Amino acid sequence: MQIRKSILVILDGAGDRANEKLAYKTPLEYASTPNLDSIAKKSMVGLMDPIAPGIRAGSDTSHLNILGYDPYEVYTGRGPFEAAGLDMDLKPGDIAFRCNFSTVDENLVVLDRRAGRIKEGTRELAEALNRMKIEDVEFFVKEGVEHRAALVMRGPGLSPFVSDVDPHEKGVKIHEAKPLKEVAQKTARLLNLFVKKSYEILKEHPVNKRREAEGKLPANILLPRGAGMAPHLENFQKKYGMKGACVVGTPLIRGICKMVGIEPIDFSGATGSYDTDMRGKFDHAVKALRSYDFVLVNIKAPDIAGHDMLPQKKVVVMEKIDDAVGHLLEIIPEDVVVIITADHSTPCTVGDHTGDPVPILIYAADTRREGEEFNEISCAKGSLRIRGKEVMRILLNITNRAEKFGA
Amino acid sequence: MQIRKSILVILDGAGDRANEKLAYKTPLEYASTPNLDSIAKKSMVGLMDPIAPGIRAGSDTSHLNILGYDPYEVYTGRGPFEAAGLDMDLKPGDIAFRCNFSTVDENLVVLDRRAGRIKEGTRELAEALNRMKIEDVEFFVKEGVEHRAALVMRGPGLSPFVSDVDPHEKGVKIHEAKPLKEVAQKTARLLNLFVKKSYEILKEHPVNKRREAEGKLPANILLPRGAGMAPHLENFQKKYGMKGACVVGTPLIRGICKMVGIEPIDFSGATGSYDTDMRGKFDHAVKALRSYDFVLVNIKAPDIAGHDMLPQKKVVVMEKIDDAVGHLLEIIPEDVVVIITADHSTPCTVGDHTGDPVPILIYAADTRREGEEFNEISCAKGSLRIRGKEVMRILLNITNRAEKFGA
Repeated sequence: MQIRKSILVILDGAGDRANEKLAYKTPLEYASTPNLDSIAKKSMVGLMDPIAPGIRAGSDTSHLNILGYDPYEVYTGRGPFEAAGLDMDLKPGDIAFRCNFSTVDENLVVLDRRAGRIKEGTRELAEALNRMKIEDVEFFVKEGVEHRAALVMRGPGLSPFVSDVDPHEKGVKIHEAKPLKEVAQKTARLLNLFVKKSYEILKEHPVNKRREAEGKLPANILLPRGAGMAPHLENFQKKYGMKGACVVGTPLIRGICKMVGIEPIDFSGATGSYDTDMRGKFDHAVKALRSYDFVLVNIKAPDIAGHDMLPQKKVVVMEKIDDAVGHLLEIIPEDVVVIITADHSTPCTVGDHTGDPVPILIYAADTRREGEEFNEISCAKGSLRIRGKEVMRILLNITNRAEKFGA
Repeated sequence: MQIRKSILVILDGAGDRANEKLAYKTPLEYASTPNLDSIAKKSMVGLMDPIAPGIRAGSDTSHLNILGYDPYEVYTGRGPFEAAGLDMDLKPGDIAFRCNFSTVDENLVVLDRRAGRIKEGTRELAEALNRMKIEDVEFFVKEGVEHRAALVMRGPGLSPFVSDVDPHEKGVKIHEAKPLKEVAQKTARLLNLFVKKSYEILKEHPVNKRREAEGKLPANILLPRGAGMAPHLENFQKKYGMKGACVVGTPLIRGICKMVGIEPIDFSGATGSYDTDMRGKFDHAVKALRSYDFVLVNIKAPDIAGHDMLPQKKVVVMEKIDDAVGHLLEIIPEDVVVIITADHSTPCTVGDHTGDPVPILIYAADTRREGEEFNEISCAKGSLRIRGKEVMRILLNITNRAEKFGA
């Protein structure tokens, strides 16, 4: 048996529903996608419930499930994955948060959740808060893109069950973190102390003094949200015997990959938005196949169009993806297994993730040829009717890596 | 409701993948199978994952699962089923092995794993080892076809977690059985003593003296492999209220049937290879339906063609099976339920079992008529998308034997 390499392409939020503006077709069904259709014709096709029928998956829980890590066991919030996406080191048991650098007045009323979309100086601001110690707990802070940042709490007796400090709107006072369970009292108390301390330190910081002098809003507080506990995740290579890499633009998915030991291949064209360089992503993925057994590619753009509720835009995005898939099919070595699917549906009629299943195709030189077109309606005629957690088992089978059970 | 009888036909390894040499069709798709297609048109059809999506099933684990015995609970190795297939009596807790009568030199280096494919005298050789007792453990030996045999260890404190003595190649010394878990130390130690003893007894045996005088290799040692513990398996008739029989050529499947109380109908034409008398198998199955409620028929030939990686041969095998199915449809009494499926895929592109699902058809006089052709692609369009463990439940339903749950 020839052991094969594989590429798993996740079109983020690509699943959709019938849209009146597209003659009641889905964007994927409406779009002209000759390359996706041509590979579908040589593939096993079907539908996948990212988690289970009707369950509205997040990108994080879905990616975890597809990679074979049960989100019901390992997921308490997105904080740890965001922090890992910013290359922070996490130990199992750490509590992590997504944060914004924000602007508040002296009464801690939020003036701007994004501190005037601050672009520069956040590294210095994060540095001013990093490694703060309150009682026996250490706080680590790292800046992200623009106003974004992550916070990690490390110490004994911590819990992820605390409410957000970020009030998610302006004109109101910041919230006190509240313990959602008895065991989270210490975590909430220390987190609130840390947030107040962040205000005292940041409001006096030279970066903010300079911003104020320039008439800009100061980034004078750090507002955490999305608490989660860093789980123990079995190493991907140990679990599957495959060395994994990923080409993804969004820090959340990058963080999930990092936490399981799938190595991010970073390049400047992977923006995680509409203008991402899709052909470039596949160039990097195919290059990575030289030294890795498995490459995950995530393309975020369809999800953005879904959230923006722009069906025509989503059609254009799918056609751009189809062009990039055509490029992929030209450059990919023979006998690499290709799986194309989505992590969830983000229907333009809804503007958010839904629990509708997503199309999937699984291609290898010898897979049963049963597909016609790559979309929700056509793929439903194929053989696959699976859940996200079954993808890796099927991938191991098609790459001829699965162990036989019995004789 | 009329209670029905049923026949379950398992085409061993019949599932396959797209094959370049067959214009990218599967052997079953490429073959001309008018009889299978005609019954498919009157049947419910679909795909079955013998165990679960992507899981590479053995014939043993798959047959157990299809018959309703969870292999994850009852299967530790094929030894017990091979031993049962040779009509050895097994008690739950016995440890059993497949064995070869082999030829070794005085340093226990293997000269021929099959002792010159010995054909005669193995009964006497087995008899010379049978019922040996070492400490508080008794050893039972029974000869099989040619060089094959089975060994059963019975006594307190035994474990199936021991490695093979058979080195699986010639020119090397036999292996010491090693305990794979702490609890298996006694089993490994006594097994090694038994194997050495087998050499001392067999090398002096008159059968071997005669073979040596004739210039043949002596069968001077017994080499065990494939340890497994005999499980407790609920009796088939008690479990389902059906008296079961089987017509199978391979000892492994015959052994599974024996262990659950499905009675083997032996006849000389069931060879378990290409030349098996397929029409004869169905003659015997239909005759058995007079006194049994359920008859299992296993046809091994497709699996052999898959292992041999011969797609055209597999096409010929499928067409021969189709001819035999035509015969079956002529002779089978009205109102017998017919299920035709496979225990796993053995793609000619791979040469071993894979985790690809297999086609299934379920026929009764009144089943929904949804099929077109009996193959992997066409059946995927039908209603069934099931796992092996669900077959018996569906069979009980279609034979009008299932109990109603509720009012």
